[in-house]
Amino acid sequence: MASNTFGKLFAITTFGESHGPAIGCVVDGCPPGLAIAPDDFRHDLARRATGKSRHTSARHEADEVEILSGVYEGRTTGTPIALLIRNTDARSRDYAKIAEQFRPGHADYTYWQKYGIRDPRGGGRSSARETTMRVAAGVIAKKWLADRHGVRVQGFLSQIGDIVPDTIDLAVVEDNPFFWPDAAQVPALEAYMDALRKSGDSVGARVDVYADGLPPGWGEPVYGKLDGELAGALMSINAVKGVEIGDGFASVAQRGSQHRDPIGREGFESNHAGGILGGISTGQRVRCSVAFKPTSSLRLPVDSLDIHGEPVEVVTTGRHDPCVGIRATPICEAMVALVLMDQALRHRAQCGDVGDIIPRVPGRKP
Amino acid sequence: MASNTFGKLFAITTFGESHGPAIGCVVDGCPPGLAIAPDDFRHDLARRATGKSRHTSARHEADEVEILSGVYEGRTTGTPIALLIRNTDARSRDYAKIAEQFRPGHADYTYWQKYGIRDPRGGGRSSARETTMRVAAGVIAKKWLADRHGVRVQGFLSQIGDIVPDTIDLAVVEDNPFFWPDAAQVPALEAYMDALRKSGDSVGARVDVYADGLPPGWGEPVYGKLDGELAGALMSINAVKGVEIGDGFASVAQRGSQHRDPIGREGFESNHAGGILGGISTGQRVRCSVAFKPTSSLRLPVDSLDIHGEPVEVVTTGRHDPCVGIRATPICEAMVALVLMDQALRHRAQCGDVGDIIPRVPGRKP
Amino acid sequence: MASNTFGKLFAITTFGESHGPAIGCVVDGCPPGLAIAPDDFRHDLARRATGKSRHTSARHEADEVEILSGVYEGRTTGTPIALLIRNTDARSRDYAKIAEQFRPGHADYTYWQKYGIRDPRGGGRSSARETTMRVAAGVIAKKWLADRHGVRVQGFLSQIGDIVPDTIDLAVVEDNPFFWPDAAQVPALEAYMDALRKSGDSVGARVDVYADGLPPGWGEPVYGKLDGELAGALMSINAVKGVEIGDGFASVAQRGSQHRDPIGREGFESNHAGGILGGISTGQRVRCSVAFKPTSSLRLPVDSLDIHGEPVEVVTTGRHDPCVGIRATPICEAMVALVLMDQALRHRAQCGDVGDIIPRVPGRKP
Amino acid sequence: MASNTFGKLFAITTFGESHGPAIGCVVDGCPPGLAIAPDDFRHDLARRATGKSRHTSARHEADEVEILSGVYEGRTTGTPIALLIRNTDARSRDYAKIAEQFRPGHADYTYWQKYGIRDPRGGGRSSARETTMRVAAGVIAKKWLADRHGVRVQGFLSQIGDIVPDTIDLAVVEDNPFFWPDAAQVPALEAYMDALRKSGDSVGARVDVYADGLPPGWGEPVYGKLDGELAGALMSINAVKGVEIGDGFASVAQRGSQHRDPIGREGFESNHAGGILGGISTGQRVRCSVAFKPTSSLRLPVDSLDIHGEPVEVVTTGRHDPCVGIRATPICEAMVALVLMDQALRHRAQCGDVGDIIPRVPGRKP
Repeated sequence: MASNTFGKLFAITTFGESHGPAIGCVVDGCPPGLAIAPDDFRHDLARRATGKSRHTSARHEADEVEILSGVYEGRTTGTPIALLIRNTDARSRDYAKIAEQFRPGHADYTYWQKYGIRDPRGGGRSSARETTMRVAAGVIAKKWLADRHGVRVQGFLSQIGDIVPDTIDLAVVEDNPFFWPDAAQVPALEAYMDALRKSGDSVGARVDVYADGLPPGWGEPVYGKLDGELAGALMSINAVKGVEIGDGFASVAQRGSQHRDPIGREGFESNHAGGILGGISTGQRVRCSVAFKPTSSLRLPVDSLDIHGEPVEVVTTGRHDPCVGIRATPICEAMVALVLMDQALRHRAQCGDVGDIIPRVPGRKP
Repeated sequence: MASNTFGKLFAITTFGESHGPAIGCVVDGCPPGLAIAPDDFRHDLARRATGKSRHTSARHEADEVEILSGVYEGRTTGTPIALLIRNTDARSRDYAKIAEQFRPGHADYTYWQKYGIRDPRGGGRSSARETTMRVAAGVIAKKWLADRHGVRVQGFLSQIGDIVPDTIDLAVVEDNPFFWPDAAQVPALEAYMDALRKSGDSVGARVDVYADGLPPGWGEPVYGKLDGELAGALMSINAVKGVEIGDGFASVAQRGSQHRDPIGREGFESNHAGGILGGISTGQRVRCSVAFKPTSSLRLPVDSLDIHGEPVEVVTTGRHDPCVGIRATPICEAMVALVLMDQALRHRAQCGDVGDIIPRVPGRKP
Repeated sequence: MASNTFGKLFAITTFGESHGPAIGCVVDGCPPGLAIAPDDFRHDLARRATGKSRHTSARHEADEVEILSGVYEGRTTGTPIALLIRNTDARSRDYAKIAEQFRPGHADYTYWQKYGIRDPRGGGRSSARETTMRVAAGVIAKKWLADRHGVRVQGFLSQIGDIVPDTIDLAVVEDNPFFWPDAAQVPALEAYMDALRKSGDSVGARVDVYADGLPPGWGEPVYGKLDGELAGALMSINAVKGVEIGDGFASVAQRGSQHRDPIGREGFESNHAGGILGGISTGQRVRCSVAFKPTSSLRLPVDSLDIHGEPVEVVTTGRHDPCVGIRATPICEAMVALVLMDQALRHRAQCGDVGDIIPRVPGRKP
Repeated sequence: MASNTFGKLFAITTFGESHGPAIGCVVDGCPPGLAIAPDDFRHDLARRATGKSRHTSARHEADEVEILSGVYEGRTTGTPIALLIRNTDARSRDYAKIAEQFRPGHADYTYWQKYGIRDPRGGGRSSARETTMRVAAGVIAKKWLADRHGVRVQGFLSQIGDIVPDTIDLAVVEDNPFFWPDAAQVPALEAYMDALRKSGDSVGARVDVYADGLPPGWGEPVYGKLDGELAGALMSINAVKGVEIGDGFASVAQRGSQHRDPIGREGFESNHAGGILGGISTGQRVRCSVAFKPTSSLRLPVDSLDIHGEPVEVVTTGRHDPCVGIRATPICEAMVALVLMDQALRHRAQCGDVGDIIPRVPGRKP
């Protein structure tokens, strides 16, 4: 399978460059009968969009989704759903200079080495603009997961630089521009980000995603494990450098007697595992954590080369986020939702009739 | 694609349960002409094997690989290579009790919920015994990568519990039973592990893998990124809870001016990125780090349920590693090698003639 | 992999309904550096288009291809190429009646049974309008095959009803509206088709496709055989009921001494095999033959049911081809080209360096 | 995906050469709970086996299937099922001569051109011995289809040379060594085959396969159509040169008023379509027809080349079938069963809950 398609049964194929005419995706494998309308995409695209506060890039994209196929009279028909967004704020400035420079920390050098040719405008295909379509496709997955299985996927920022929340209150996450779960810290974060922006530098971030309401049984050992696919999906997001499930790297210093989750009459008594055992969901909350590097596009100069091998000093004057991790929250949610929906369909295919042809084992949930 | 196959062009399909008659794999897509003999598998299988020191499980498997197909007169022919290992130390003890209990921290509960039926003997398919075949397949990938591209993949333990090496010396890694890169610490580790074993408890570990010698250009944006596929591959190993590329989670607290790697006349001047930008190899060392949880099979009792929903106390008396991360080092290497070989073939397919049909850009490496 | 994607390394994903806002496709895996412009699509789309002679449907579609991504300054960049065609002649007539009827010979009944919901306008997704995008994607494949390997793919009509050509002259195929290889018969065909159209009935057709210039070696045993993939690709075209390679069904009555192709000093001395042995190209002409059923949309009434199970009489008054096989010629060529390009890339991946790591065998073509 | 795997959700991966140590396959994606035992494979493997009558090759293989994994206490567990057959009649004769010759009509030349190396013993991987594992995997699919859906797959010979049955009586197919559906013709066929064998020549054959009991709705437009996948699957069998669905090539000379199947109160009134419309099953009998070429291994000499480019005369003295189509009947059945089971699971994944989230349309079958 070519590499711009994600998923097996619920599969998305994205296309488009940052400053090309449009970006889009084809969502294939959605079950028929799901209600979908252009309005459904507005909320999550707005959460991801730039230009909403002074803390994100000033680039402004309308990001209006056009549904080109697969929906008839407001419901999915089982045929591929194509979504299209025209690029409206692709500035027609001079790219001649940037086209010959390799921006450190970006994919300029590697695309050029791999393909021998590249679209330099705004990073071309390597721009995070591509993730807009992940969010759009994720809207469909989230809706199906909620309607069909009562599953809810919720992300938040769990670290910026060395700042961590004192408390995790999911109820306040959508009330501030940082997806921050501790309302009391928001003023301090505002000040921190203002100082950062003035400095011309950037900072990394950590995003956590929770998925609640999964039944036990989703995930396919051994190369389609739920945690394996989540890790691959999240690491494929621009600027991600690490992924954890459950206790993640903290597990390294734990004892087995501490990490393993006992099972009592009411079910699991803790959740160090993050809701996944043996690559299959336990029915508990699924917990993922994702590390974002600081953006490399800075007003501070850095040494590099041009394509002729000559030294250049690179300075970025465009519109960029000082902390790309902030807007990445809905992207992480989308990737988790895409994985979950694909796994749900695959589980239904292989195990949809367990209990029909063999006697249902006592206590097993249907 | 079904879920016991890994890879797109260089694809392995594994099968087998811990205490079934055999485990094996089919390696499909290997280029013809590679010299492969049964002896080639001995070294890495021995590195992974149990029973080699007092610090790993006492289960003893001969792990003799039989090549069933795909090799003629000592060379691969381009047809699928089937590898088989008979299970010789599958103890015929009574599994009646364990068959009805869910061991906390293991996949017993989730397999039972998913499939409604499971092979309880030694964990069945969820046992780490399956990883033996990953190591065997990895031997082929490592050999091809070395012969064809001069790539070397090397793993080592970078943390046990809260112990970290003072120095990283790859030359000593194979000289101690811990794949530990700091020879001076080995006696202390021996003592630590002895105490741990006596306590009946277990501990987590961190494994690092370096891949050296890659050309720039391997990796396929946007859903076949090199880092995305490494993360998915490594997270699919039993007991893994986290994966990092380059600086990983440390990036969260870094500034952009610190993280981005400047490029000088001689190439990149640092490697915070871990050898991958935009999902494509830069030509630098690829660095991955993997978190292993402590094994859940302990002599210390823990609360659980049986399949009838009744409380039970689970105690493990079998042969188990107090630190599963140690023997996981060659498994991590194998997964990295499998990803790299698959990506190398995919790169050759799409970009194998860059420079032929378009003029080669100045400075681009062939 | 979801089912609206075709191909492994050179993969197309199509979308769109007959009377929806647009149809389109995403072409993923194209090597970088290939020159592609909107004009390249005109010729083949015109060959497929309706409304060009009185012998095809009167529906008129402008079929202007917009390139949305993957091409920069006239050359492919290695990123996905999205192609879009707006539906301009989707008549806004009343579909209420047709929405409740099952047209015999069409997919109305089966889509309704499968999905429980369907877009009834012009057949929705099951319309042959979808094949427009196959032709568009095929243009890219044909161009790459010609530029890179000198391969030429050429189709023609080899039977309409019971009329067969007396001679096969590829030079005249493009000079008549029937893709007919025997110029002397064209007037008779015109008369035949006029009579057929007046009768309100339709007729089947056979299309042959030749591919010349392949090197030996393309095709992947055993489930990726060149002939197997050609058969699957051609049978996936609307209205196809049979596929032959080489002598096809005539082989059933042949003797082995007659069918097998001897090899002389100059190469193969005949080509009953159709250029493929063991699923791999021999280097000879690849010959396929495809059977198209007569269209089921007729002015002649036929018995059917509506969705309530009540009998209805179905009469088609819309714009339809009396022989759908005619316009199918470029579609067949496109599917052959798509298979060949995908196989070429896959061959390069696995066997691109045969002769480098093993000594090249005498006489083997590079 | 590599090319020795067939199927998406119910996927088989086969391996093995004709005269290597063993052949085998891994069956991945089988639902849990299906009863499977070694005995289940005996019947179909015997039907395919050589040496059963004087009309097939004298090579004798015991073909005992060993189940290596995926079955516990007689039932499938949802994990991969590995099947192994040791090659017991691989004669250790001198292959030095044949190793340097290209047998016309065989894959010797193309494997050598593709891979630069080949296992010449008995055709190596290109031998029809590989199809033994297709039959073994097909046994599992047939059993699941029968148990779960009441689907029955039945093949028979419908032509040898220019002999066609006068009547089709499925009840007598298993009572003669030719899978011939007309008992009265069997003596004449015996005489025909005896004469053919004495002549040293071979002849082609046509195999028909019927699948009864399918529900409407199986098949995935547009590149996973049921007929498209059947065609690809059947064409991938050794020696196949053509595939038809329903009326096949006869459709070319039909009128639309004749071909389209009217629908009456009791359902479809004819079945020219072969049980598939728009790539989706109608619920009627699925009819496929397959053309087999005459085997190329003859006692009659033929001109060829050796690998040095020198002319040679090739004469086959080994054990070969004068009509390979006869034993191909169970192979064709197996491929049809594999496609159907895969499609059944895929249908369940996407449309398994149609009627749950949207109101069920009147008359639609559950």
